[in-house]
Amino acid sequence: MAGSVNRQVLLKSRPEGAPSLDNFELIETPRPQAAAGEVLMRTLYLSLDPYMRGRMSAAKSYAAPAAVGQPMVGGTVGEIVASRHPDYASGDIVLGFGGWQEYALSNGAGLRKLDPAAAPVSTALGVLGMPGMTAYVGLLEIGQPKPGETVVVAAASGAVGSVVGQIARIKGCRPVGIAGGTEKCRFVERELGFDACVDHRAPDFATRLQAACPNGIDVYFENVGGAVQEAVWPLLNDFARIPVCGLIAQYNALTPMPGPDMFSILRKRLTLRGFIVTDFAAKQADFIRDVGQWVRAGRIKYREDVVVGLENAPSAFLGLLQGKNFGKMLVRVAD
Amino acid sequence: MAGSVNRQVLLKSRPEGAPSLDNFELIETPRPQAAAGEVLMRTLYLSLDPYMRGRMSAAKSYAAPAAVGQPMVGGTVGEIVASRHPDYASGDIVLGFGGWQEYALSNGAGLRKLDPAAAPVSTALGVLGMPGMTAYVGLLEIGQPKPGETVVVAAASGAVGSVVGQIARIKGCRPVGIAGGTEKCRFVERELGFDACVDHRAPDFATRLQAACPNGIDVYFENVGGAVQEAVWPLLNDFARIPVCGLIAQYNALTPMPGPDMFSILRKRLTLRGFIVTDFAAKQADFIRDVGQWVRAGRIKYREDVVVGLENAPSAFLGLLQGKNFGKMLVRVAD
Repeated sequence: MAGSVNRQVLLKSRPEGAPSLDNFELIETPRPQAAAGEVLMRTLYLSLDPYMRGRMSAAKSYAAPAAVGQPMVGGTVGEIVASRHPDYASGDIVLGFGGWQEYALSNGAGLRKLDPAAAPVSTALGVLGMPGMTAYVGLLEIGQPKPGETVVVAAASGAVGSVVGQIARIKGCRPVGIAGGTEKCRFVERELGFDACVDHRAPDFATRLQAACPNGIDVYFENVGGAVQEAVWPLLNDFARIPVCGLIAQYNALTPMPGPDMFSILRKRLTLRGFIVTDFAAKQADFIRDVGQWVRAGRIKYREDVVVGLENAPSAFLGLLQGKNFGKMLVRVAD
Repeated sequence: MAGSVNRQVLLKSRPEGAPSLDNFELIETPRPQAAAGEVLMRTLYLSLDPYMRGRMSAAKSYAAPAAVGQPMVGGTVGEIVASRHPDYASGDIVLGFGGWQEYALSNGAGLRKLDPAAAPVSTALGVLGMPGMTAYVGLLEIGQPKPGETVVVAAASGAVGSVVGQIARIKGCRPVGIAGGTEKCRFVERELGFDACVDHRAPDFATRLQAACPNGIDVYFENVGGAVQEAVWPLLNDFARIPVCGLIAQYNALTPMPGPDMFSILRKRLTLRGFIVTDFAAKQADFIRDVGQWVRAGRIKYREDVVVGLENAPSAFLGLLQGKNFGKMLVRVAD
């Protein structure tokens, strides 16, 4: 019977270069049962995030790769459907790391209860979750923006970029976004309130970016790399800060891509600093307080791009890597 | 008569790629006279430093280029031979920026009186001057070394590198030097007290460096770039700090050389930060206090490589760019 089944999306094989649907496999397995001390969660939302490309590869990184033949890893919002854990009861909604599957067990480690009355639970995977906190700590702790400065971020309509720019705006900076296509750029300027947004698909992208940054660039929140980085580089001001958060344009590269020239780092006294959101776990409470307040006050807006059905997770993820999503990418796994 | 002459080394032309003797010209001009408010300094020591390569080029940098047809710029220790300035008297020894010439005028701006009884006056151009302070602020402010960490610096017998490693040692770190040739490496290990020094000319340099850094590298003080940087890069630990102070191996490059791959910056959460010593002018008093004390206590040693005669400055400078000097490079212009 359908009720006893757990559909999972496995990592079937590791991609060489760009991943494809062949790297994933949808299977049905028996739904697991909670042992003593465990809960069984039914996945409501699965988060799709660029970092998952890294998990598909065996290369050494800051976290272990996903295992071939196992469900892909990922953050989830789920409902407790069976609990043998003292802290959780059936019906609780929790943020967890259930992976690409309909049901997941947990011993409670890393779970956090959500209050559906406080905010839509999906936001725990986006603006009030890992992507939002990535934006918050990267911009404020590393970028250290000062009022009046120009802050540039790519993927500006996405889960991280949208928050970077809006916090920059709140801090009195001049946020300039980069996004793919006029629709996204319009959204970034009109809905999110960036001072400008430049379409990286425009043939004269570099010229437009320069025009949008008449005073140069003081903070470049790096989440894409590649051609965008090349256009940004000459516009950086002395003492610019570059939080290095991601390199989505380079994730499929088969060989290391050389970085920006060291002379600029020296002459302009640039600071580049890579970071992972978990490095700043101590800032969690500050993040929840500040961004929670800004979202409730309507000062930070967010947009979700929700695809329905676990079976659509692989194609949605491939689209995310190509910038086809428009807002925080989520899979609605169950109602 | 000889006494009325001022010999100068002019920047005759700007080099394309590696500079040569043809880029300089030794001339004799009349010795200038101090006007009201001015002093005339007789140069005792001229400092030769890698940054001067940048001044020979017209490319935009953090300081204006030296002018073609004018004396090359440079730090000097001189004796006041005529003073029409209330703060200085004949016989005073001063640190200044007299350039590549036997006599220089000054209105007093940037001059600092030296006490020959406190330290050999030449040290004001080296361990107790700009190079020493470069090492001090770059290592401590940007490198932020912690006890037990491995600190790597190239040009380890030179004016900056030697101080970097010795301060690292004083701070409880494990300094590993890189230098050219066994004689320099022996000096760095035995006289300066580095834990190890690796000869970058050895065919198995990268392997030797790895062997000298069994716990990886936590701070890489970047003053050379090029092949040394390539060997260092894979050995960097997570959260390593890289003060970018100089790129002497790349100064003659005609096109920008691509930097290290961004993935490492992201995955290892590296910090790269370019700096110029003058950015940290506020640390001058700390530097003088700390390093002065360490030098007096014999905890920091220094070595000078002194060439005699202004006419030898160009060849000594070309040698400096090739690592032919052994210690802080100075020109003894007058006794």
